Amino acid sequence: MTKPEIVEALKPLFYPGSVAVIGATNNLTKWGFSTLSSLLGNFQGDLFAVNNRDPMVLERKAYPSVKDIPAPVDLAVIVIPAERVSGVMRECAEKGVKAAVVISAGFVETGPAGKAMQDEVMAVADAAGIKVVGPNCMGMYSAPHNLTAFMFPLPIMAGPLALISQGGNVGGALVMDAVTRGVGFQQYVSCGAAAGVKIEDYVEYVGHDDLVKVVMVYIEGLEDGPRFIEKVREVSRKKPVIVLKPGRTEAAARAISSHSGALSGSDSIYDAAFKKAGAIRVETSIEMLDLAIGLLSQPLPKGRRVVITTPGGSYGVMCADACASRGLEVIDLPRRAMDEFNRMFPPRWSHGNPVDPAGDRNFAPYLRAPEIILESDEVDSLIFMGFGSFSGIGGMIASSGDAFSKGLEKLNQGLAGVSAMASSMLEVLESGDNEKIKQIIKMALRMTFGSVMASDGNEIERLSDTVAEALTTDAMLAGSFFQGLKRLFESAASGKLDASGFSSIMGMMEPMLDALIYYWIGKYEKPVITTTFTEETSVVREGGHFPYPNAERAASVLARLVEYREFLESAEEEEK
Amino acid sequence: MTKPEIVEALKPLFYPGSVAVIGATNNLTKWGFSTLSSLLGNFQGDLFAVNNRDPMVLERKAYPSVKDIPAPVDLAVIVIPAERVSGVMRECAEKGVKAAVVISAGFVETGPAGKAMQDEVMAVADAAGIKVVGPNCMGMYSAPHNLTAFMFPLPIMAGPLALISQGGNVGGALVMDAVTRGVGFQQYVSCGAAAGVKIEDYVEYVGHDDLVKVVMVYIEGLEDGPRFIEKVREVSRKKPVIVLKPGRTEAAARAISSHSGALSGSDSIYDAAFKKAGAIRVETSIEMLDLAIGLLSQPLPKGRRVVITTPGGSYGVMCADACASRGLEVIDLPRRAMDEFNRMFPPRWSHGNPVDPAGDRNFAPYLRAPEIILESDEVDSLIFMGFGSFSGIGGMIASSGDAFSKGLEKLNQGLAGVSAMASSMLEVLESGDNEKIKQIIKMALRMTFGSVMASDGNEIERLSDTVAEALTTDAMLAGSFFQGLKRLFESAASGKLDASGFSSIMGMMEPMLDALIYYWIGKYEKPVITTTFTEETSVVREGGHFPYPNAERAASVLARLVEYREFLESAEEEEK
Repeated sequence: MTKPEIVEALKPLFYPGSVAVIGATNNLTKWGFSTLSSLLGNFQGDLFAVNNRDPMVLERKAYPSVKDIPAPVDLAVIVIPAERVSGVMRECAEKGVKAAVVISAGFVETGPAGKAMQDEVMAVADAAGIKVVGPNCMGMYSAPHNLTAFMFPLPIMAGPLALISQGGNVGGALVMDAVTRGVGFQQYVSCGAAAGVKIEDYVEYVGHDDLVKVVMVYIEGLEDGPRFIEKVREVSRKKPVIVLKPGRTEAAARAISSHSGALSGSDSIYDAAFKKAGAIRVETSIEMLDLAIGLLSQPLPKGRRVVITTPGGSYGVMCADACASRGLEVIDLPRRAMDEFNRMFPPRWSHGNPVDPAGDRNFAPYLRAPEIILESDEVDSLIFMGFGSFSGIGGMIASSGDAFSKGLEKLNQGLAGVSAMASSMLEVLESGDNEKIKQIIKMALRMTFGSVMASDGNEIERLSDTVAEALTTDAMLAGSFFQGLKRLFESAASGKLDASGFSSIMGMMEPMLDALIYYWIGKYEKPVITTTFTEETSVVREGGHFPYPNAERAASVLARLVEYREFLESAEEEEK
Repeated sequence: MTKPEIVEALKPLFYPGSVAVIGATNNLTKWGFSTLSSLLGNFQGDLFAVNNRDPMVLERKAYPSVKDIPAPVDLAVIVIPAERVSGVMRECAEKGVKAAVVISAGFVETGPAGKAMQDEVMAVADAAGIKVVGPNCMGMYSAPHNLTAFMFPLPIMAGPLALISQGGNVGGALVMDAVTRGVGFQQYVSCGAAAGVKIEDYVEYVGHDDLVKVVMVYIEGLEDGPRFIEKVREVSRKKPVIVLKPGRTEAAARAISSHSGALSGSDSIYDAAFKKAGAIRVETSIEMLDLAIGLLSQPLPKGRRVVITTPGGSYGVMCADACASRGLEVIDLPRRAMDEFNRMFPPRWSHGNPVDPAGDRNFAPYLRAPEIILESDEVDSLIFMGFGSFSGIGGMIASSGDAFSKGLEKLNQGLAGVSAMASSMLEVLESGDNEKIKQIIKMALRMTFGSVMASDGNEIERLSDTVAEALTTDAMLAGSFFQGLKRLFESAASGKLDASGFSSIMGMMEPMLDALIYYWIGKYEKPVITTTFTEETSVVREGGHFPYPNAERAASVLARLVEYREFLESAEEEEK
């Protein structure tokens, strides 16, 4: 099919004007109840309930058959026992329904009798030109009309991902985890047995949707491998396609056959085919989501040469191992960076890559280091470890009670000396004059960095300018960083910093880092992968970067960004 | 050293009566401030501040030197520039200090000059018999006197773990992650360069502490490998020792040398040595914590034969792959289990291992299945997937707004029919007569399970009895499950179930599962490893099990439990 064909063909699925839930019920313990619940209040189109016994379902009129609905129905969502699906599909054909999501299970995955039933359903659907999702699926989502046609109310939101999953549970978990991290979808299809619309059809479709930036596919087996590979290869030149395919072991192959009824096939053949198609293969759903967010937020690195900055030696050691064992090159530091770091950091710094200031409590050099690294042509990417560790340690200190209160008193005595200056700075901050604000911030930064960083004046000026640029975008001026900054100047002006003021100042660190990271990525067009320092799940930060909870996950994403770039280059080479 | 020797020798470290912080300061931006903060309000003993300029620190008297403190000092925590440490150590010797935690960095890891300084410090300490932790460390914790001697106020709590870490950051992250999951420590030592007390000394010490159930060690390099192996081997026959040792790659080996100054050595030699010592090696800090919690909460499996139960096919497929690729045997189901499941589950169930009821919405058979599996001699362990998925889906349904309210109305109409019976049951529940309560619960369960499970009367009776036993322990009678149950009977009695009532009933699922899992583990003495269905970090549940966020992590823990059991058996064999 050419582009317009598939887009036109699947339109009733992804842009239905009206939906009927066949099997909708008042019984809270049945899937027919939760399927209707899932759509109610979300889907922006006409919604009908079909129930062959009750005249009312959830206080809306229920029709005994889809044929009784007094309006056109684009999409039927079918959630009734398998035995009754072919009959209902026949009614859908008579009604002129254009597409169907068959949630019902009990077909090909149960053996020959189930397969016969499925064949019958599909014969009816095919004859009528009905596009079928499933059977044995969890449902589907499409962003434009907020079509949330799931067997239970799965939380989902609109965004740049597309997910096609042969497993409803793995797919549902991916959706929930993505939403928890703050990323949404254009389409999510739990395709189940994919008896009607094939996995490669969905891939082709989302390949044409410009709002989709990354395609994720979970497959257990393919009917037509070569066609899948062909379609994926077309898409993967335009946007990345990530594939999760279990079945490396005999045990999983058996499980696949009883789950989706698919033949898993030889894993090494799949592996080679994915490579050829430019699909990036991952081993777990967490890797899949990590990589998707990496692809959304980072430029592709030109090569394998990485530098690591770390607020702690052992983090750096773990990261060096994680990078090198994935084929990344933890390079020797460029000469100029070495010289500069020797000036900036205390003598105990690591003198190499990973760059570790070894407990230096002045954060300024640690914020200047990335630019010095990224400026070098010898470096393709940066891993910036310990995102959140400054504010984290600050938070721990602020929570240390009595000692902290007494520490604040001493700090306030120090602030008294600069209160006059702080007052005039505060006036500028509140003036709304962005150019003046930028100047004030540059000045304040130069003073701050100058007092803590043993570097030459040029370096201090460069860092101050960079940070000031990153901090004075419109978004930053409206955000939490500026609230913290005003608080800081207010405290300095009045000489009265309290615990909540200290916390809000500590809270400035992360938005400031977000702004800097975004700025570095934009300026140098190189990936700046961040890591945090606990295993708690982060959210996608302002500007798009996502702090991975450990070095392994960060390195794994970076290695695959390199892999995808290499595929794109070889594909381009081939075309010449 | 024999047992009493090491325990006696390290007593001043782990049971100090008094602590002096040398380098304590009012300056909120210095480590000396946060180190004192970390101890204040926590340490249960005498605490002194030493500062050679200020007479008062945090409103307490500060002494110019440790020698000026008018009381004995057991332990000195030293947080001053490296150049001044040997002088201070000399004063500690004169004062009769017995142990020192040297947080200061800038010694062997910086090169020959630093090594010379360190040698000088150690010569003084050794001559005076001062036991030294560090230098270049983050501090230490000991539960008995709540000694929280860290360079910043690290949140930590008492519990059954011991952690010895050559990396302060990796160690600190492990501590925070453990506390987030709800597990605490007897000891945590960030041993840094381990110039005084060696890593193997700590291992030996914690080996003798009966409150320590699992030992975790992060090392970058060893001075005396054979001695380490000897000590670990002694301990690992009594309790598990988990080792995290980066340095597989050249890049990490270089990073290690600049971080801890250690020679990393050949990774394969380490690997062989760890095996010989019975240490269980892991690759990441997350694996380390996963395994530690697994060892705390699960019996060791007798062999590699595992059965998986899953509420979703694709979860099962991923889990089969994860198990089989780690050397676990995803066995064919025992005949009796097959027969029973054919009766219990709908015909579309997976008919194999993984056991998947394929969307069966009746949870009762899914709760009976584990017992049928665990009863079989052919099964060594069980992976129970989807912990939290019942209440999770229930929660999603409850959050579906308008549709949900209407569904509840219908449900209440149904409840009206049983209101009289519910009233009398509620009376019993509130009677406090546990024997009667158990009978009522058994009756209610038999009715419930009988109505939803297509199995014979014996099976229903067995499940009801099991669940009733598990649910009527004193802990359960006092917990959230019972609150939910009363709520359920109240609603049934009044025919008025509202959304918060529904949620509290859904909230009963997890405590009920906790009780069942604990009961199964105790009855069959086989591991029952649980997984959840999102990547969010869980907490250790009532009864001790920890729901891992995915199949890979669960399988990885189980495979290592087998590995440890095999070590214990071979060690026993050897001794004969």
